[in-house]
Amino acid sequence: MIILKLGGSIITNKDSKDPICNYGALKRLANEIKSVLINNSKEKLIVVHGAGSFGHNFANKYDIGSIFKDENDFNYKRKGFSITNNCTKKLNTYVCDALIEFDIPAIAVQPSSIFMAENKRIIQSNIDLIKKYLDLGLVPVLYGDVILDVNEHINLVVISGDQIINYLARELRPNKVILGTDVDGVYNKNPKTNVDSKLIHQVSSLNDLDSQDSTTNIDVTGGMFGKIKELLCLAELGINSQIINANNPNLMKNALLGDETIGTIVKID
Amino acid sequence: MIILKLGGSIITNKDSKDPICNYGALKRLANEIKSVLINNSKEKLIVVHGAGSFGHNFANKYDIGSIFKDENDFNYKRKGFSITNNCTKKLNTYVCDALIEFDIPAIAVQPSSIFMAENKRIIQSNIDLIKKYLDLGLVPVLYGDVILDVNEHINLVVISGDQIINYLARELRPNKVILGTDVDGVYNKNPKTNVDSKLIHQVSSLNDLDSQDSTTNIDVTGGMFGKIKELLCLAELGINSQIINANNPNLMKNALLGDETIGTIVKID
Repeated sequence: MIILKLGGSIITNKDSKDPICNYGALKRLANEIKSVLINNSKEKLIVVHGAGSFGHNFANKYDIGSIFKDENDFNYKRKGFSITNNCTKKLNTYVCDALIEFDIPAIAVQPSSIFMAENKRIIQSNIDLIKKYLDLGLVPVLYGDVILDVNEHINLVVISGDQIINYLARELRPNKVILGTDVDGVYNKNPKTNVDSKLIHQVSSLNDLDSQDSTTNIDVTGGMFGKIKELLCLAELGINSQIINANNPNLMKNALLGDETIGTIVKID
Repeated sequence: MIILKLGGSIITNKDSKDPICNYGALKRLANEIKSVLINNSKEKLIVVHGAGSFGHNFANKYDIGSIFKDENDFNYKRKGFSITNNCTKKLNTYVCDALIEFDIPAIAVQPSSIFMAENKRIIQSNIDLIKKYLDLGLVPVLYGDVILDVNEHINLVVISGDQIINYLARELRPNKVILGTDVDGVYNKNPKTNVDSKLIHQVSSLNDLDSQDSTTNIDVTGGMFGKIKELLCLAELGINSQIINANNPNLMKNALLGDETIGTIVKID
């Protein structure tokens, strides 16, 4: 089983104020993903995608995930919850369209319909549904979304695609976890502001990063630093993951097929 | 609590080969639905919509819900399952967009993510999620979709919005069930082919219909006859429902507010 992430920064214009889908990248990646099913039609595959500009702007604007002050504040956040949920779903429709176009039997699994959180962490899910889809050769497609939280002071929270990957990998123990981002991997410093930054080929601890600024995209769900925290939790369980630059054609394909690729492995020796 | 149906023949061009949304009707109805929340902001409301031309054509083409003959046939149906699921979700995004535009805190609940069927009938769901949404004042929006079936000879089935209404009404015992269709109600004969057809103001049994042809829209999920069968099951439990013509401006609003409207009541005295 492979769990694969399509970063929001790849499939959307993440810096845009409006939700803009990067259809070109999406179709290229769908074609690359197809190669793993051509190689082995019985391979179980799960796709998780970020929300990019279809989620982060709204989640920020409506301050979803913070304790609500009063009924008015709750109603405001609730409106943002509706809007964000519908917009991430819209992006998911584009992703499924692209996968289906390349004959991948994609089936959306709406995170808000299967997950429940407690203090912003997933505590409950309908994992059996995902297992059944996989057994039938369907490719479940999940995504960064807003979901309910049992903490009555918050109620409405954002969950990142990375947290979903962490959750699914713990439950399903995939052979491979591959994360397609818009950078070559993890750097010791932010490569966009530090000329002497170096790509780290293996991360085994947060101490491998010189600063929390080792990222090019800080977002509402924590950017690269948040991502690595999720992946280190998996590495502690013996589930290794690989961060690659999905903007480079064929890197996703090579990673999926097990060919050597530039990137960062998150693994504890 | 009110459970409200927006028929696929109202919000889509149901006769179209391609999926075409009727945005005008959708917005008008969203505005009418808003009136119930203006009248009572604490009213619990669930919206269920049909799939119309976003579902039936694909479900028919790929013959979803019939026993599959062999692996090739299953793979063909599985492709149709993916396509139908993504297309109904697309329509749901438009419906939620319209509701949100009119300040209704709509939250999609993907049927394929919460329901499981056995021989084409829903046997399992995540009803707690819907209850939690209602408690928070959110308006769950469900729709006719494809879902998994535990019968291993079928696996993939279609469920109508009407079946969802039947299921939800049994579980949640709403005060009102209102179905917006494209006809004034139930006729003793098909009004489009029989000049002497008469509107039936109350249906208490299938015997009240002169023929199974008492409908203008036979579809993959059974058209008006299928609808009445679902509603009679509810009537037996004491849950009455009302079929109205949602093409007529303000009829939905009047029905929601409890004003007298032309239509058919499904009720057992």
